[in-house]
Amino acid sequence: MSSQAPHSTLLIPGPIEFDDAVLQSMSHFAESHVSPAFVKVFGETLTMVRKLFQSTNPSAQPFVIAGSGTLGWDVVASNLIERGENALVLHSGYFADSFAACLETYGAHATQLKAPIGDRPSLEQIEQALKEKPYKLITITHVDTSTGVLSDIKRVTEVVRRVSPDTLVVVDGVCSVGCEEIAFDEWDLDVVLTASQKAIGCPPGLSILMLSGRAIDRFRSRKTPPSSYFASIANWMPVMQNYENNKPSYFATPPTQLVHALHTSLSQITARPMAERFAIHAKNSDRVKAAVAELGLRQLAPQPESQAHAMTAIYLPDGLTPADVLPGLLKRGVIFAAGLHKEIATRYIRFGHMGVSVTDPARNDIDKAIAALKEALTEAKQAKLVN
Amino acid sequence: MSSQAPHSTLLIPGPIEFDDAVLQSMSHFAESHVSPAFVKVFGETLTMVRKLFQSTNPSAQPFVIAGSGTLGWDVVASNLIERGENALVLHSGYFADSFAACLETYGAHATQLKAPIGDRPSLEQIEQALKEKPYKLITITHVDTSTGVLSDIKRVTEVVRRVSPDTLVVVDGVCSVGCEEIAFDEWDLDVVLTASQKAIGCPPGLSILMLSGRAIDRFRSRKTPPSSYFASIANWMPVMQNYENNKPSYFATPPTQLVHALHTSLSQITARPMAERFAIHAKNSDRVKAAVAELGLRQLAPQPESQAHAMTAIYLPDGLTPADVLPGLLKRGVIFAAGLHKEIATRYIRFGHMGVSVTDPARNDIDKAIAALKEALTEAKQAKLVN
Repeated sequence: MSSQAPHSTLLIPGPIEFDDAVLQSMSHFAESHVSPAFVKVFGETLTMVRKLFQSTNPSAQPFVIAGSGTLGWDVVASNLIERGENALVLHSGYFADSFAACLETYGAHATQLKAPIGDRPSLEQIEQALKEKPYKLITITHVDTSTGVLSDIKRVTEVVRRVSPDTLVVVDGVCSVGCEEIAFDEWDLDVVLTASQKAIGCPPGLSILMLSGRAIDRFRSRKTPPSSYFASIANWMPVMQNYENNKPSYFATPPTQLVHALHTSLSQITARPMAERFAIHAKNSDRVKAAVAELGLRQLAPQPESQAHAMTAIYLPDGLTPADVLPGLLKRGVIFAAGLHKEIATRYIRFGHMGVSVTDPARNDIDKAIAALKEALTEAKQAKLVN
Repeated sequence: MSSQAPHSTLLIPGPIEFDDAVLQSMSHFAESHVSPAFVKVFGETLTMVRKLFQSTNPSAQPFVIAGSGTLGWDVVASNLIERGENALVLHSGYFADSFAACLETYGAHATQLKAPIGDRPSLEQIEQALKEKPYKLITITHVDTSTGVLSDIKRVTEVVRRVSPDTLVVVDGVCSVGCEEIAFDEWDLDVVLTASQKAIGCPPGLSILMLSGRAIDRFRSRKTPPSSYFASIANWMPVMQNYENNKPSYFATPPTQLVHALHTSLSQITARPMAERFAIHAKNSDRVKAAVAELGLRQLAPQPESQAHAMTAIYLPDGLTPADVLPGLLKRGVIFAAGLHKEIATRYIRFGHMGVSVTDPARNDIDKAIAALKEALTEAKQAKLVN
């Protein structure tokens, strides 16, 4: 039984439903950010971020900073590339446009390699693009929350290492960390940035990053200082290293309660093998995708290999909009998200299936949501006289 | 009776002790950031930020963003001044150095007007500096948390308006908002930036700003785009305006639980006249300062008019360091902070007296802390054979 007040089940692609213990950690009593007790909690949290990324390489560096996931883009754009340098941005939805805008804010040239809606750039296209000019970094949206498209970051990285080995591989993992397989060291990734409120299962307000030794070296060999202050690796790295070595340190006051909540959620996640967690998400994704097909609906991402495992973006039947279907879901205690990709926002809905909603079968969230979707669709079709 | 687990009383200059209801709001169940219920809460919160600043001018604009207080400096430095332009930074402690570093990160020229430790630049010095060259903005640390020095932002602003009327007046109110008098409209301020975890009494993780119409106009007339992405007013202003008009909007996921907590704390604060709140802080400050004098101790700020009302920075007797005194306080259930100003960090301690610790007399926090300080000092002197 949950200790939370009764509420509709939140099945959007983040924020997600939270475990009771995680929410209880959010109301931790006031604590100094430099007290031994908090230093220990923050240090352990950083060490668990390494586990989350299946990383054991001591030259990799985790960061946990007060901010939205978006802040991770600023960390990349203001520390790992300099004015006038080139970035290749793989586009599989809305978020690539924003990441490109962030890179350009700090003076980089962002070249977007765009795929049609529901698809991702092919390995051949990526190889071709990498051969055209030297790129300091390439960005990949692991799962684009606007389209539910999954990118194959392992194989993209293999292409990068073969064709342009010094290009940093930057993964936007906001909607993938904690649900999609990521082997940070083994796949030779350079940056994965994420947020707390998706598959990590902690309330929003934390920007979380993992940087490789190669990325740190790139930062250290900059010709110009970092072009952001709050997002500066120079300001944060000593703080993260000190806390993980059990020493207090100060740049800006850390969000103590959110760090406690992250500690609780990462303790739960890392208590079991990550492979098991990925498998649970894949299995539930299969159930959702099968149910969507059975309802005669199409996904934005038609190819199974490019379908995310923690969310499904679903085209509505012609003639229906999210406004016709979401209220019927809400009436049944289930919250999905409307479309986000500007060109087709009124034609689809998004179903998030991650975190406790899939790892805790006693919740029965997925079955309930599938049943609610079926009923809400029937009801909406009848109301609109749509077949 | 508090529902919080037993813990030592946190009397550092932030984070501070939190009210039970505020902490309970931190564990609010999962909610979509674009749901009608959350949109209402966020919108009301923004409206209460106006009240907090005693502002009724519709052209002023509040911002609440996931981040530390430090992020407010980036908002100023990347939106309200351009590369090569001049900023005058009034120095009354550690935080002016950092604000200057932030301004220079984004390309402004920061000229610091430094006062000796424990003091603040005089109005004559400020007037003189403003006459020397044109400054796009002036920054004032309202209360410098490293020294406990209070600046007279009202009179400084009068000087600015008389001598250099177009210079934006930017107040770092991290340790002053919610405890020191601020009349945003009446005093003609342009920016006050703050954080959630000090006198506002909400856990850390929120950067809060108030901008005047003049500041917004300055932003709108930039010759170059904002030089930060996450701190860009262009990205955040439509979001804040939409939420306050009860419409969902998206740039980055807001920290929903922290916004609930801020809503609760601001509801409590704005339920009574702000003048009453300032008076309570002043009265308790007087008690603390009298007790400090009675113990034969000196403050870093010798002049009463430049002493903060929500914290006191106290020189230790010669021969004692924070490490000699803080454990004795902790043993008695009270947490003070060590020194922060690099040049004298080992010679003083900081006592924060704000928020529920002064507004809720039933807690008895201040009397307990004064008694503990007296005993801990006596004990430390005996141990070190100091008179």
